[in-house]
Amino acid sequence: MKDIKLKHQNGKPLEIKIKGQKIGRGHYTMIAGPCTIENHEDLLAIAVELKKMGIHFFRGGAYKMRTSPYNFQGLGKKGLEFMKRVADETGMISVSEVVSTEDVEMIKEYVDILQVGTRNMSNYRLLLRLGKVNNPIILKRGFSSTIEEWLLAAEHIIEAGNSKVILCERGIRTYETYTRYTLDISAIPAIKELSNLPIIVDPSHSSGRREMIKSLSWAAIAAGADGLLIETHFSPDKTVCDSKQTIDLEMLKDIIEGNKKLLNLWD
Amino acid sequence: MKDIKLKHQNGKPLEIKIKGQKIGRGHYTMIAGPCTIENHEDLLAIAVELKKMGIHFFRGGAYKMRTSPYNFQGLGKKGLEFMKRVADETGMISVSEVVSTEDVEMIKEYVDILQVGTRNMSNYRLLLRLGKVNNPIILKRGFSSTIEEWLLAAEHIIEAGNSKVILCERGIRTYETYTRYTLDISAIPAIKELSNLPIIVDPSHSSGRREMIKSLSWAAIAAGADGLLIETHFSPDKTVCDSKQTIDLEMLKDIIEGNKKLLNLWD
Amino acid sequence: MKDIKLKHQNGKPLEIKIKGQKIGRGHYTMIAGPCTIENHEDLLAIAVELKKMGIHFFRGGAYKMRTSPYNFQGLGKKGLEFMKRVADETGMISVSEVVSTEDVEMIKEYVDILQVGTRNMSNYRLLLRLGKVNNPIILKRGFSSTIEEWLLAAEHIIEAGNSKVILCERGIRTYETYTRYTLDISAIPAIKELSNLPIIVDPSHSSGRREMIKSLSWAAIAAGADGLLIETHFSPDKTVCDSKQTIDLEMLKDIIEGNKKLLNLWD
Amino acid sequence: MKDIKLKHQNGKPLEIKIKGQKIGRGHYTMIAGPCTIENHEDLLAIAVELKKMGIHFFRGGAYKMRTSPYNFQGLGKKGLEFMKRVADETGMISVSEVVSTEDVEMIKEYVDILQVGTRNMSNYRLLLRLGKVNNPIILKRGFSSTIEEWLLAAEHIIEAGNSKVILCERGIRTYETYTRYTLDISAIPAIKELSNLPIIVDPSHSSGRREMIKSLSWAAIAAGADGLLIETHFSPDKTVCDSKQTIDLEMLKDIIEGNKKLLNLWD
Repeated sequence: MKDIKLKHQNGKPLEIKIKGQKIGRGHYTMIAGPCTIENHEDLLAIAVELKKMGIHFFRGGAYKMRTSPYNFQGLGKKGLEFMKRVADETGMISVSEVVSTEDVEMIKEYVDILQVGTRNMSNYRLLLRLGKVNNPIILKRGFSSTIEEWLLAAEHIIEAGNSKVILCERGIRTYETYTRYTLDISAIPAIKELSNLPIIVDPSHSSGRREMIKSLSWAAIAAGADGLLIETHFSPDKTVCDSKQTIDLEMLKDIIEGNKKLLNLWD
Repeated sequence: MKDIKLKHQNGKPLEIKIKGQKIGRGHYTMIAGPCTIENHEDLLAIAVELKKMGIHFFRGGAYKMRTSPYNFQGLGKKGLEFMKRVADETGMISVSEVVSTEDVEMIKEYVDILQVGTRNMSNYRLLLRLGKVNNPIILKRGFSSTIEEWLLAAEHIIEAGNSKVILCERGIRTYETYTRYTLDISAIPAIKELSNLPIIVDPSHSSGRREMIKSLSWAAIAAGADGLLIETHFSPDKTVCDSKQTIDLEMLKDIIEGNKKLLNLWD
Repeated sequence: MKDIKLKHQNGKPLEIKIKGQKIGRGHYTMIAGPCTIENHEDLLAIAVELKKMGIHFFRGGAYKMRTSPYNFQGLGKKGLEFMKRVADETGMISVSEVVSTEDVEMIKEYVDILQVGTRNMSNYRLLLRLGKVNNPIILKRGFSSTIEEWLLAAEHIIEAGNSKVILCERGIRTYETYTRYTLDISAIPAIKELSNLPIIVDPSHSSGRREMIKSLSWAAIAAGADGLLIETHFSPDKTVCDSKQTIDLEMLKDIIEGNKKLLNLWD
Repeated sequence: MKDIKLKHQNGKPLEIKIKGQKIGRGHYTMIAGPCTIENHEDLLAIAVELKKMGIHFFRGGAYKMRTSPYNFQGLGKKGLEFMKRVADETGMISVSEVVSTEDVEMIKEYVDILQVGTRNMSNYRLLLRLGKVNNPIILKRGFSSTIEEWLLAAEHIIEAGNSKVILCERGIRTYETYTRYTLDISAIPAIKELSNLPIIVDPSHSSGRREMIKSLSWAAIAAGADGLLIETHFSPDKTVCDSKQTIDLEMLKDIIEGNKKLLNLWD
């Protein structure tokens, strides 16, 4: 950061508009949905329930980054078609991950907001390509990236032409093994100090523990985060992946109730 | 934790009573004061201001653990005398660190609550000695200790005879250098799941950055912490040590105002 | 690793043959050359010097992964052309990094051994593509990847069809800041226990300090590594990038002299 | 380090003389023995075998730092008496850990070299006390201490009056779980650059894996270490603690054989 002047370091906080919704300071964007898209029926059922709670954004994974080549890799394009169909049916805004440069052109037609996963934060060729699309980009922090490297990764996208970047803190790798990753709550005030980009938090991947999601979600909003990205399913124990960190719809309602008490903290 | 049954793992949350105050779930203990005791006059002035805000606990360091032998090591016993005098003059409850087994007998006469610093969490001989006193003990987490090691350190004190242990999360060491340490916010729900001991948070040492204290304090309370330990001074820039992370009385008032909105989140 | 049976976990150590050279247990492959290819003349001059020392492999970067979008990104295809020309002129074996799936088909025609950089170890789509080529692959460890994740990344390439994978330890990210990364010397015996793939060590990126390269190189060979990958230039202080960790030809000669004393340690 | 001038930063390498032996550059001090002293008979049997191999230093733990209060804490003073007896019977030099300030005066009469364990590296009161004795001190690196903090800890002892400090790298805590700790091999060249104190390596605690000790021992000597501290027992599987990382006498012989090939690397 020392000598470099980042394009997103100054000026008033960025407000991103999409399908009538706003993302940025004071808008508390809530994004929920399953880890992986399994079929159209379940995805629609979840989206409908989310909409009833007043949620405008739903997520689902079509292309998965799996540590082992022998694990389920996602439905691929079929999953994207379900995303688009559910977005059309509900009027909601869809979020899904792009894992390779060669998919960008295709995915941008199916999904509203493109997500860069933690393992791709430093995939600069992918970032460059995402600088050429119009979709907002959720840029997850690399699980061992510094705040400086994360801000510079955002700069790769912005410098290439797309200023609609949303940063997402999702936990960093430390020596502690009780949680899957360690949610770096300090990243929230740091980003608000150093950048005008919106900063949201993913409590699901950071903890890997369902019973912590409420606590971490409220902590994030109280710390000043602009939104949350939470893995949610009507039947978490039956999901194909990430069951242990996926919450049910009841807990999501609880979190939203609590959030209401927190929204005017920073006014 | 696997096979071991800890004395503090079960039963209802522990409530510690001291001089008419209670520490534990739902009591939101606020502890504030300077990093180091410099003289009687300033310490009294700070304590009086804290009391006006409704704070019952004040802290101050007499024995300091300094990385370099050439840094100021604290006033020692003289500092403890000031602590006791201010506690008597204001009716407040004092908190100060004990750094060596041989000091325990003496310090316990001067200070109400004894604190074990992060570098001494695994000083088992010291923990054993603290198991023999009646004062409540604040046990800071070792800056590279796992949650399991921390709970076992508490067990050393409890097994030796003193069950009045308060756990304090103060940040862990990670690769991130923007903050001095990384506040492990997940430790709060973890401790509430695994132990019946009170858990408080020190946002000052974890961040090392004054401008983050408000954000981290609110995050801690929203996450479910039972209290806060904040380095505070009427003139932070003039303090002998830790100036960068010490907040002034105005910011402390702001934090307390915000906290009020958070207190019924977990009811 | 628990339940998974990796294709490279059993059997005798893999021996990779290329242009008359062998890589694997007992062959002590030495790879040297500049961080970045700057022009044909300098690259050739370095290669010629390396060859005089008995070195058969030279490296050079054409596509660079740079944290900031404002840093030099490499010569690109022009650099690859220089690589091929120098390989043809000297008969040496060339090594260069591939940073994106879409470049694989092209690069494999210019370079003998393709390298996957630390930021791409978990770029599974790239690994899949590299499973379809015939070139040997140097797979650098992700700077925050576990040994298990690294072995599984190798499995992605092998499962996709290319068994010629060479693992390269290049340092992991820790709290220590004196060195750029921390060379995980224990990874050498670990890999030899868990896999039949060759394991080489990059002391340049792990330390970021020229004065440590000799010490770390000898440590790696003594620990049982099958080779070294060292950034070398005839004039390190004048290089475009990574000057601080690049050694000169004299030091490389010293290292090779020392290595000779170590080669029969493990017989 | 920036502004501070350490007493051990300059001048020629320190050579410590004790009972006719020398510790320092070029002396390759080998220290071996059991994790814990169990009885006189076994301790003597091990020491006799070590002596036959040409080893002059034996170690054994009398006071143990145990994470759980329910684990074996060592034989205490009884163990020290066995240490002294075996030292007298064999003429060897004894090494044992001191865990508390109040034990210093007593232990120094029983043991030749006092060791500060990793959990006590920042126990400054203990370091101060050790500055007042004549015994050489082995100062293990804190498992999450930076090289700078370690050098400053040594300065606490030296400034207090005892310049006979031997630094011991024993692994640092990282995210990697395959090994207990990560041996920081780079600490060896770093210490030799920054200090004139002897630097030895403990491969036993750093790996926690018996099958790695040979590899790590040779790596340490090749990197330039001045000695090794290895947990050894004639029957490792029957020891009270640390069985998994303790090697038998045969393996120790192998290591010593290999070391001979490495001793003139740095001449």
